[in-house]
Amino acid sequence: MPKIPKEKLEKYLHLHREFTGKFINLHPIQRGGILTEAARKAIVEFGDGYSTCDWCPPKTPRLDMIERPPIAQFMADLATFLGMDVARVVTRCREAKFIAFAMLGKPGDTVVVDSLAHYSTYTAAELAGLNVKEVPHGDYPEFKVGLNAYADKIEEVKKETGKLPAVVVLTHVDYLYGNLNDAAVVGKICKKYGVPFLLNAAYTAGVMPIDGKKLGADIIVSSGHKSWAASAPTGILAMKEDIAGDVLKRSKIVGDLSGRKFAAKEYALLGCTVMGAPLITLMASFPHVVERVEHWQEEVEKARYLVKLIERIEGTRQLGIKPKQHTLIHMESDGLHKVSETHKRRGFFLYDELRERNIVGIQAGLTKHFKLNTYGLSLNQVKTVAKAFEEIAKKYGLKVG
Amino acid sequence: MPKIPKEKLEKYLHLHREFTGKFINLHPIQRGGILTEAARKAIVEFGDGYSTCDWCPPKTPRLDMIERPPIAQFMADLATFLGMDVARVVTRCREAKFIAFAMLGKPGDTVVVDSLAHYSTYTAAELAGLNVKEVPHGDYPEFKVGLNAYADKIEEVKKETGKLPAVVVLTHVDYLYGNLNDAAVVGKICKKYGVPFLLNAAYTAGVMPIDGKKLGADIIVSSGHKSWAASAPTGILAMKEDIAGDVLKRSKIVGDLSGRKFAAKEYALLGCTVMGAPLITLMASFPHVVERVEHWQEEVEKARYLVKLIERIEGTRQLGIKPKQHTLIHMESDGLHKVSETHKRRGFFLYDELRERNIVGIQAGLTKHFKLNTYGLSLNQVKTVAKAFEEIAKKYGLKVG
Repeated sequence: MPKIPKEKLEKYLHLHREFTGKFINLHPIQRGGILTEAARKAIVEFGDGYSTCDWCPPKTPRLDMIERPPIAQFMADLATFLGMDVARVVTRCREAKFIAFAMLGKPGDTVVVDSLAHYSTYTAAELAGLNVKEVPHGDYPEFKVGLNAYADKIEEVKKETGKLPAVVVLTHVDYLYGNLNDAAVVGKICKKYGVPFLLNAAYTAGVMPIDGKKLGADIIVSSGHKSWAASAPTGILAMKEDIAGDVLKRSKIVGDLSGRKFAAKEYALLGCTVMGAPLITLMASFPHVVERVEHWQEEVEKARYLVKLIERIEGTRQLGIKPKQHTLIHMESDGLHKVSETHKRRGFFLYDELRERNIVGIQAGLTKHFKLNTYGLSLNQVKTVAKAFEEIAKKYGLKVG
Repeated sequence: MPKIPKEKLEKYLHLHREFTGKFINLHPIQRGGILTEAARKAIVEFGDGYSTCDWCPPKTPRLDMIERPPIAQFMADLATFLGMDVARVVTRCREAKFIAFAMLGKPGDTVVVDSLAHYSTYTAAELAGLNVKEVPHGDYPEFKVGLNAYADKIEEVKKETGKLPAVVVLTHVDYLYGNLNDAAVVGKICKKYGVPFLLNAAYTAGVMPIDGKKLGADIIVSSGHKSWAASAPTGILAMKEDIAGDVLKRSKIVGDLSGRKFAAKEYALLGCTVMGAPLITLMASFPHVVERVEHWQEEVEKARYLVKLIERIEGTRQLGIKPKQHTLIHMESDGLHKVSETHKRRGFFLYDELRERNIVGIQAGLTKHFKLNTYGLSLNQVKTVAKAFEEIAKKYGLKVG
């Protein structure tokens, strides 16, 4: 058999993460996924392969039917928490989108999406064979999505294809500017047209309060590793009862010789999904998540506070809607960019300087535009970050304040 | 917002696994997925959400391109280890099958599968819109799949549909009898017809030596949580170079207004896949896995030894090919079944008796047919299991030996 020489295997012997302990990590996608202590214990307990499957019910052998550990109960609580009727945990938010697209659309159908949707919304549509029609966003510096244009776009699809869009998607908070959209506006439009409304709450559910019923969402998708203090990969697919039957259709395929059938299985999920540790982290963190969303406004205040301090640097401004309504922040800095133009490390100087101060997570090399996320940082940590920016700016001769 | 009352959340506070420590767990799908000590350390280190993404390369932002931790290197080593050219880690073996089906077939095409394929092979075909044509297996007690019939089935598909099957699937070792199939036979047939050959090595790669080139496989799929000492969910998708281009097609979708493109993304994977802890456990266990497959024959010997001892119980025999060539064992016991007919706990008596002896993993309620797996048990543990069966049989008046 093909052998791998021992020396090639050494690199796997001591896998470790570089940014733990003393570091303040501002990584835009990582703040909401930091495990709770409860999840950190549970992940070890349930680390082994199919660790959730000790008590799989023989008559309905399916992950979401397992009651020991309380997975079935969790699915129900998760749906309730989001103001929906039915929930499943799938492998990623993007898989949840793909499942909805594949089950509600046919190849050639169209899905309407906001033009700030994450790339995975597009690839999910592509895999399902759907076309996308984008709802425009406004110009610099707000880049606000024009929510009322959803109606126009639905009309356009109807006119161009002779049928309504298979699904309408709104990204609740986008990945680029961290703008929060008023989902209820789109919910109302979708209701009027009778089109399924999928709300991508990857950046919102799990950190801020979400009530799917109030927002008029038919489907809410979210990301456990992004916003629910859970390990990757975990996605949430929550639905209203009347659409769940379509999305979670049972398998009908029959073996042509054997006659085998798999009628218990939800085939778009391929049967079971996250049959191990990440699901358990999601469950272990759930009591904390239920509590933490109540403190969302405090998190937003910290983000606004940091923005105010960083904006004191010459030629620096926050992009996206102001004031911030989310902790994901996009900064633009002509000042820091100007420094990079003559620095021997070019744009990397900012990363170097922050790292020297034990602050990481802003993409190395960027100065003109960079993203950061303050979710879950203490006020003191936020102050440390603000002070670091001020020091760096002053060190390179930029005006502050 | 919808609240979850505190008392409903208590059940998530102390999630624990019941069968650890003193228990010998014979669960048919769990033996190959028990973490190594290295993986147990790594899972804590990389427990947080997107823990693998600290060093995502900005120009090719994709999980398999990350070099810190050595994910890109791992993809290459994994392919080499399996005798293939290209590898990706996806969320499950079943997702790997779905990806291959979706990318190599069109809705309405046919996939040829062995009639002992796992249900997830069928649901993957169903989601991809493909029909299945089954290759028959022989009768009781061997249930051996007739591999030469693959040629007939390919011919049948050609005759009935006017085109060759999109993919041909062989389950290397099946879930029901643990029969090992000679994949090279099917490899040759597929080569003759020019049809892609997908080998489902969920029960083999990671525990026994596999050389995809020798077997003539175009695609090997496997399951990290089943056979690679990794946490769920982790699937392996390994391919030959010439087919990888089709399976891993880059995204071509374009935002109609924004013009956004995502040309770095492999769209059937939806971009990134296992961006956290389970992937890291797979990597951390890899050095051990590379070594352990060399000891496969010892594992098979232990399985045969246990079969021999359990078969001494009156009316008890191993089903499937004899002697065992794999550690997944299917036993049939008229003797134990006879006991269950008059026992007040019915079929559950066997589970109860084993559990009293700290042996678990055989499905509660079963006596006439039950499955177990000896992979990774010490010889002493195997002897303990054999002795337990002997004791239980004698206790209920069955002859032994």
